[in-house]
Amino acid sequence: MRKTDVLVIGGSAGGILTATTSKKVYKDKSVLLVRKTGTVMVPCGIPYIFGTLNDTAKNRIPDTIITNVGVNLVVDEVTKINKENKTVFLSNGEEIAYDKLVLAIGSTPIIPKFIEGFNLENVFPILKSEVYLQDLLEKLKAMQDVVVIGGGFIGVEFAEQLQKNGKNVTLVEVAERCLWQAFDNEACETAEEAMKSNGITIKTGIKVNRIIGTDKVQSVEVEGGESIKADAVILGMGVIPNSALAQEAGISINAQGAILVDEYMRTSEKDIFAVGDCAEKRCFFTNKNIPIMLASTAAMEAKVAAANLFGLKYVRANKGTISAFSTKIYNKTYAAAGLTERRASEEGFEIVIGQFTTMDKHPGSLPGASKIELKMIFIKTSGVLLGAQIVGGDSVGEMINILSLAIQQGLTANELNTFQVATHPLITSSPIAYPINAAALDAMTK
Amino acid sequence: MRKTDVLVIGGSAGGILTATTSKKVYKDKSVLLVRKTGTVMVPCGIPYIFGTLNDTAKNRIPDTIITNVGVNLVVDEVTKINKENKTVFLSNGEEIAYDKLVLAIGSTPIIPKFIEGFNLENVFPILKSEVYLQDLLEKLKAMQDVVVIGGGFIGVEFAEQLQKNGKNVTLVEVAERCLWQAFDNEACETAEEAMKSNGITIKTGIKVNRIIGTDKVQSVEVEGGESIKADAVILGMGVIPNSALAQEAGISINAQGAILVDEYMRTSEKDIFAVGDCAEKRCFFTNKNIPIMLASTAAMEAKVAAANLFGLKYVRANKGTISAFSTKIYNKTYAAAGLTERRASEEGFEIVIGQFTTMDKHPGSLPGASKIELKMIFIKTSGVLLGAQIVGGDSVGEMINILSLAIQQGLTANELNTFQVATHPLITSSPIAYPINAAALDAMTK
Repeated sequence: MRKTDVLVIGGSAGGILTATTSKKVYKDKSVLLVRKTGTVMVPCGIPYIFGTLNDTAKNRIPDTIITNVGVNLVVDEVTKINKENKTVFLSNGEEIAYDKLVLAIGSTPIIPKFIEGFNLENVFPILKSEVYLQDLLEKLKAMQDVVVIGGGFIGVEFAEQLQKNGKNVTLVEVAERCLWQAFDNEACETAEEAMKSNGITIKTGIKVNRIIGTDKVQSVEVEGGESIKADAVILGMGVIPNSALAQEAGISINAQGAILVDEYMRTSEKDIFAVGDCAEKRCFFTNKNIPIMLASTAAMEAKVAAANLFGLKYVRANKGTISAFSTKIYNKTYAAAGLTERRASEEGFEIVIGQFTTMDKHPGSLPGASKIELKMIFIKTSGVLLGAQIVGGDSVGEMINILSLAIQQGLTANELNTFQVATHPLITSSPIAYPINAAALDAMTK
Repeated sequence: MRKTDVLVIGGSAGGILTATTSKKVYKDKSVLLVRKTGTVMVPCGIPYIFGTLNDTAKNRIPDTIITNVGVNLVVDEVTKINKENKTVFLSNGEEIAYDKLVLAIGSTPIIPKFIEGFNLENVFPILKSEVYLQDLLEKLKAMQDVVVIGGGFIGVEFAEQLQKNGKNVTLVEVAERCLWQAFDNEACETAEEAMKSNGITIKTGIKVNRIIGTDKVQSVEVEGGESIKADAVILGMGVIPNSALAQEAGISINAQGAILVDEYMRTSEKDIFAVGDCAEKRCFFTNKNIPIMLASTAAMEAKVAAANLFGLKYVRANKGTISAFSTKIYNKTYAAAGLTERRASEEGFEIVIGQFTTMDKHPGSLPGASKIELKMIFIKTSGVLLGAQIVGGDSVGEMINILSLAIQQGLTANELNTFQVATHPLITSSPIAYPINAAALDAMTK
């Protein structure tokens, strides 16, 4: 029987990073990654296959990332875990023994079975398989009218890319605003305006009544009775954790179907870990179970798990997700970390807001300068940073990570008002108007 | 006699930010800023007047930054401080009374009086006056051959901009490498290669013997006897603090002429503060007196001083400069914070290096993707971050500030390996290859 010290199931972000990190930390251990698909897509790159990239092959994570550091790779499906014998079975019948097992088995898009017509031809959930996406790319070429259901990141990114590729796109979101989970209203409105002004029809605060068609979808009927012509429907309604394999093996899962883990990503079973979308997520601020599944959270969990597989070597643990996001919609970048003002208030925090708007180069007359709008949410009495949202040029994609770090470290407005930053005319805001310093001062002086 | 609660002398970064911050923190206090020049240049923007901007007017800091928040402005020179009476005298004879006085009187370029010919016509130090710079811009238009003496940031930025503007540029640096104070050899070499391949002649490890000419400069003779044709010489040899005004008033200064200050930027005299280039700089890591003068350090000092003018309201103090820099040379951005490997070793730290190279978008095949090369310097036993250097696309201008914050917070490789980051295909590296996480792991597994 084949034997490996570390066996990782799953080939996306969480699986890859657990496998490669464990090989770097435990150089003498053998590491095997088993995945179902022949190729792996960059998960967050999937919307860009349908516009910017126009090709699935350009969106592959190369296997050399795994194999170059000495991780072994098997393409097959794990059908069963025998935790007593510490083995797994592949679909070809092979049994493989492990010392430590890591489940990085991901999530599955929500299929809205409660909507009539959900299973018509040309209603597409977004799966991560290259074969499926290549087929979708081909099919969409002949189609003109596309309805995207769901205005979260995936829905918005698909809508933007398909519009850029010449499609007639309508985005339907049941909540009052697109992107409302990550941003407060100001940023959501900016994003919606950008989409509208580029020709996307946005319908927010509106439910889908039914999807209409005989074999193929023909239209989508929304609340109020309006019927929207549709050659295709893209479903961006969220994902649910994969956990059947774990549940069948007797590993504990929560009510939402996510695998229970401790701060070191250990499941209820000795020697079995779980990371990424399949593992339960907890909120950094409240420790509540929250359904936010991101590749960047998976990456953190993978690093925590990998470093601590053979005994808890490193004290740094998973203290919960801070929900750090970013995206680009037309010419602006939208980035957020931590709690929104809305969620902070709902959770009962007494808050104070700091805001600042400036240019991302100095002088602002420099070619290519963009406006940066920063909003920071602090606890009123202690000044501790709870969340931040930025809309601006590309540089805010890294600026949000300054604030991600600040949130994770529990830093205060006072510390962020005076922290030292590198600045340069061609690359950043002015040192006298650096947005993080300035928004922190704004909060302090309110 | 006119009276103001807060009087700030100096109109550049440190002065502006002290004045505006103190007005925001102490809303009921009157704040007056006195400066010598009618207009103020963005200090770090000055090199870009000579290429990208091609106009001094585009490099002005607008007075509205000061006046919009209710700070009063006087354009005149302060000729004397009477600290016993708590007044200052202007060149027009007016006496103004203050409650708190802040000196933000800047620095002066080093004029190499030890080099024969230093005072020939067309040998130009870089002053911050718009009138002077407008005149320099006009004069350079008719000139073709320019020798830049000094390969620090100012020298390199001038060389790059003048070359882009069609000049024949030679850069002479006495040290072995350009930019050696901020970067270790790898990054210095990358920068030098970029300059060379664009046609700048680089002479490092070479002294200037003398500047030759009758009235006007004609050539520069360097060590070894070579003579380099020169219509103009640009001096980028560093700056020295301005402190005559303080010294005459009996305020303590150090051996290098910088005004002595405590952690709240208070001078030896009650009710008198000093910030920016004129104030003594101390190293964050060693508390040694170091001659590093940056607008971003001035900004931090201004914010610390302003918040604490009327009693120490905020505990956050100036713990010393971490020397956070960034610049752009041709298409690459160079950014650094903290100690270089060289300086860390010289100071006696036992260090371990973490390195990682990746692309700044994912997949790397996306249009406009640039390589990022990150080097981090940690203390070996504790894992505390001492310094970082990054070469890459524009986004590294904000990425360095993640590391600036990490250095100021004393974070370790272990913490940086697993900190959560927002990532997006079009804007950042992949979550499985995020450079800060990955370089921290590299250091941990060495």
